[in-house]
Amino acid sequence: MILEAIYHRPKLNWSYAYNRTTMHLRLRSKRGDLDAVIAITGDKYAWDRTITHIPMQIFARDEMFDYWEAETSPPYRRLRYAFQLIQGEDSVWMTERGFEQALPDHPLEMFDFPFMNPVDIFEPPAWVKDAVFYQIFPERFANGDPSLTPANAESWGGTPTPTNFFGGDLQGVMDHLDHLHKLGITAIYFCPLFEATTNHKYNTADYLKVDPQFGTNEQLRMLVDACHARGIRVVLDAVFNHSGREFPPFVDVMKNGATSPYADWFYIKDWPPRVEDGIPTYETFAFEQLMPKLNTEHPDVKAYLLEVARYWIEEMDIDGWRLDVANEVDHQFWREFRQTVKAIKPDAYLLGEIWHDSLMWLQGDQFDAVMNYPFTNSVLDYAVHGKLDGLGFANEIGKLLAAYSQPVTEAAFNLLGSHDTPRLLTLCDGDIRKMKLAVTLLFSYPGAPCVYYGDEVGLDGGYDPGCRKCMEWDVGKQNRELLEFFIHTIEVRKKHPALRSAGLKIMYAEAGDPCLAMERVDSETGERMVLVINASDEPRKLELGWGDHNVWRDLYTAASVEARQNKLTLELGAYGFSLLQCEAKQPAEA
Amino acid sequence: MILEAIYHRPKLNWSYAYNRTTMHLRLRSKRGDLDAVIAITGDKYAWDRTITHIPMQIFARDEMFDYWEAETSPPYRRLRYAFQLIQGEDSVWMTERGFEQALPDHPLEMFDFPFMNPVDIFEPPAWVKDAVFYQIFPERFANGDPSLTPANAESWGGTPTPTNFFGGDLQGVMDHLDHLHKLGITAIYFCPLFEATTNHKYNTADYLKVDPQFGTNEQLRMLVDACHARGIRVVLDAVFNHSGREFPPFVDVMKNGATSPYADWFYIKDWPPRVEDGIPTYETFAFEQLMPKLNTEHPDVKAYLLEVARYWIEEMDIDGWRLDVANEVDHQFWREFRQTVKAIKPDAYLLGEIWHDSLMWLQGDQFDAVMNYPFTNSVLDYAVHGKLDGLGFANEIGKLLAAYSQPVTEAAFNLLGSHDTPRLLTLCDGDIRKMKLAVTLLFSYPGAPCVYYGDEVGLDGGYDPGCRKCMEWDVGKQNRELLEFFIHTIEVRKKHPALRSAGLKIMYAEAGDPCLAMERVDSETGERMVLVINASDEPRKLELGWGDHNVWRDLYTAASVEARQNKLTLELGAYGFSLLQCEAKQPAEA
Repeated sequence: MILEAIYHRPKLNWSYAYNRTTMHLRLRSKRGDLDAVIAITGDKYAWDRTITHIPMQIFARDEMFDYWEAETSPPYRRLRYAFQLIQGEDSVWMTERGFEQALPDHPLEMFDFPFMNPVDIFEPPAWVKDAVFYQIFPERFANGDPSLTPANAESWGGTPTPTNFFGGDLQGVMDHLDHLHKLGITAIYFCPLFEATTNHKYNTADYLKVDPQFGTNEQLRMLVDACHARGIRVVLDAVFNHSGREFPPFVDVMKNGATSPYADWFYIKDWPPRVEDGIPTYETFAFEQLMPKLNTEHPDVKAYLLEVARYWIEEMDIDGWRLDVANEVDHQFWREFRQTVKAIKPDAYLLGEIWHDSLMWLQGDQFDAVMNYPFTNSVLDYAVHGKLDGLGFANEIGKLLAAYSQPVTEAAFNLLGSHDTPRLLTLCDGDIRKMKLAVTLLFSYPGAPCVYYGDEVGLDGGYDPGCRKCMEWDVGKQNRELLEFFIHTIEVRKKHPALRSAGLKIMYAEAGDPCLAMERVDSETGERMVLVINASDEPRKLELGWGDHNVWRDLYTAASVEARQNKLTLELGAYGFSLLQCEAKQPAEA
Repeated sequence: MILEAIYHRPKLNWSYAYNRTTMHLRLRSKRGDLDAVIAITGDKYAWDRTITHIPMQIFARDEMFDYWEAETSPPYRRLRYAFQLIQGEDSVWMTERGFEQALPDHPLEMFDFPFMNPVDIFEPPAWVKDAVFYQIFPERFANGDPSLTPANAESWGGTPTPTNFFGGDLQGVMDHLDHLHKLGITAIYFCPLFEATTNHKYNTADYLKVDPQFGTNEQLRMLVDACHARGIRVVLDAVFNHSGREFPPFVDVMKNGATSPYADWFYIKDWPPRVEDGIPTYETFAFEQLMPKLNTEHPDVKAYLLEVARYWIEEMDIDGWRLDVANEVDHQFWREFRQTVKAIKPDAYLLGEIWHDSLMWLQGDQFDAVMNYPFTNSVLDYAVHGKLDGLGFANEIGKLLAAYSQPVTEAAFNLLGSHDTPRLLTLCDGDIRKMKLAVTLLFSYPGAPCVYYGDEVGLDGGYDPGCRKCMEWDVGKQNRELLEFFIHTIEVRKKHPALRSAGLKIMYAEAGDPCLAMERVDSETGERMVLVINASDEPRKLELGWGDHNVWRDLYTAASVEARQNKLTLELGAYGFSLLQCEAKQPAEA
């Protein structure tokens, strides 16, 4: 046994309360090294009469490791445990003290999960795992009220630059709710709506006011109500890491210097605040002098921002916050932020913008989710860039599933692009087949998928400003095939719980082969599906080892496929895929 | 390279702010596998012009792994980083994406420590690392006021049972402050003082009242003041996981059942609260029906307990809390508890009773320390039970140093026994030589050592109730040799910052050899010491490889020892030790 590869440490993604009664235990071992792992569990105050052996299952694999999991419901909400690691005839026991040749008698030597206190359990809003998000960059979605359009705005559909305007507004969104409804989305994530000088509004001037270019607070409230009436939730973007330079407290600091009552609202390293050799003497987002970093530890700043959080939830009835540059703000602020928001709306969604490992923000006390860019990268590297073969993609997915607890996976915010990345169609070099593969993977994965506005009608564009083009409303210029594909894909996801469940198993993935088969199972309904993908530019005939008696139906072509002699034979076109639903529903014999 | 053995994940004990300007990066590799590791660091928004290569050092080792560390001060409080792993001519780079054959260009692929926000930094009270604690079990320390002694009390010095009384009280402590002052201790940890029916008082009836058997609140205030006047801090025991059965809210619940206004203060699983087949129908500590678990998530319970926390800190001026069964209470409660306490007394010490892995309580938002029983076990297994050889002990210490951040090590609460364990002298089978070894190790280790009352005069006793004997005040019956040894050892620790610093290096530890040499260095003063231990029943002559020109002085015998030809020759008796201070202070050439 390669003991150096074994990893387990209580809490985090290794042992956690999945819900108020169920615990998950996980352990990592070198891929292929162990034949079995048994979790030995019990109550710490009644070890001898509660000891239970639970065989663990491999729930994920990556190129280096197998990840094992067991589920248990401790009757007294407390759990002591150890692991029996089995290779052939040999066993080694892993306890908190290390590796042992026998299971120690005393439960004090075991790992300890002391108590499942409900308040500490990571409980994201239940609606998120069934949601389909749509991200709107408000200045570019639709111009519904020309009277609000900035004087220097360019005509709709022009070339976006970092600084130009086109006149998108809230009325424009209101006018096009039918489009969103037809598309089938159930939640909107709005990029910032609050008053700010730029077109992206990430430099807030007034946190309590909708930008007049977009409309009024009252209009937003009407829009939220209209969305709710159609079953669409609304999440706004909160930029609490930094303000804009026109935020009155910062204006006051610039004017009055160290004597300003707001002097401590920011981190001024050298007075007066200024820029020297391109570096501000005050802390900022990046080195951006227009975005002074807010001192979120200051009680007044905290009180102000928490009031902002409250205002839009309570008065405007929004359903959550997306939190910009979330990982540069202190954890303590986010804890209080969560408590403030959840006290008003317990099922509000708190979504942090973090591009990196986010484990410490996803423990139940801070965010419900982060923007899942690691998932984005894996899908793009596999289905779009061809950098990963099927096995490489399966390994990335395995790594991701193992990196976080299951409830995190279930409430993840999955995306293929945003206002901060090139557009999917552009990354696909305009090849709609590749785009469809990526979108199908997105919609077959646990967590909430998000469509970046316009992707569904074929908008293209590179990095900012390219990815922030005006939405195409001219039906003649929309890619209707793509739109129909999105509509169908969203419908399929909403109809089939297996696609939204956490039950995910790689059925086929080989080195050097761009094909992939991924099983999706919903344990509640027993629904079972398989997504088979050919991420190559050649047609492929695939023979997958499969249970004998299953009849499968392709949810895009409606064709029926039957497994014969334990083989399921599929012909996939170049960059083709097949999403199959098991009609017979027997368990696979594979 | 054994890549499966490499471990790093941002935050926790792997990358953390050591203080407001300094970061530590750590990485684990298979012991002996890598020749060097370089941390490649930079600012995420200015990677190219800030990239810096920092060679990492092995700061700890255990039987399986080397633990590498680097220190850096990011000018903008943000850090991206990767690791270059070197074995001979080969290098592999470790980034957030995995292992790579070259360092990627883009900082987005690096690990990320997004921002060093002061409020999130683990900052235990500065005084703790220099403190020497003394634990008092109040009913058994001294009877200073016979008028308070329970009628059924037995005579001082009798045999303790789980239920009997002897009459210890606060006046008794007041009367013996001279003893504590002479001993040299600087802080007292009192087992519970609040009103309760038992002798141990872990079943609180009134959280706001000193038990009348011990005295009054006013007397406690006087005692705290008297302690402070002698430079002694006072930490009380808070039992917030559960109350006693006589706690008025629980009495009300027992009387009025589900209609009690306190019905939700506890976890009643089945009304009326009762015991069936030995198992209470309400949640308790263990299965102890006299200790109903408090619902610390309930706003009223929380408000009540936080008021308790405030009262004793603010009105009685105590210096911290020891928190009983701390890991069964919710994290959220402890976060609010910390904020409440620290807002009043920022340098109050918060010490959780956790016997197991405590990583998630030692992140800066909850406790300053936990009762370091893993350290206890390692010292006992080595110096007392002979279960570990020198290498085994060194490995346990290495594991412990690597398991937590350096500030956690510096503020740890280190003990060799308590009211919950057998007495040290009893574990040593009365062999004072073994006891001295263990005590010397305790006082040569970073963190605050704690003496359990009476250990210093030779009290013995097994598990509870044996370990809760009456303190021996008859000078003729005290072990004066032991007492002098404690006094000297405490004095030596207080005089020599090297013994209190985090600078710890194993200089000699071999499999099969019970000897050990451990270097202790204080980086500020440059003070350098070596503790050499012979944990065997045979005298030993030891030749340690050492720098040539160093003259060493034994801090117990005052003898001088000189290293000659790179060898330091020492003769140690059975269970002997030598604590040497380097007088020449050159860096070792070893």
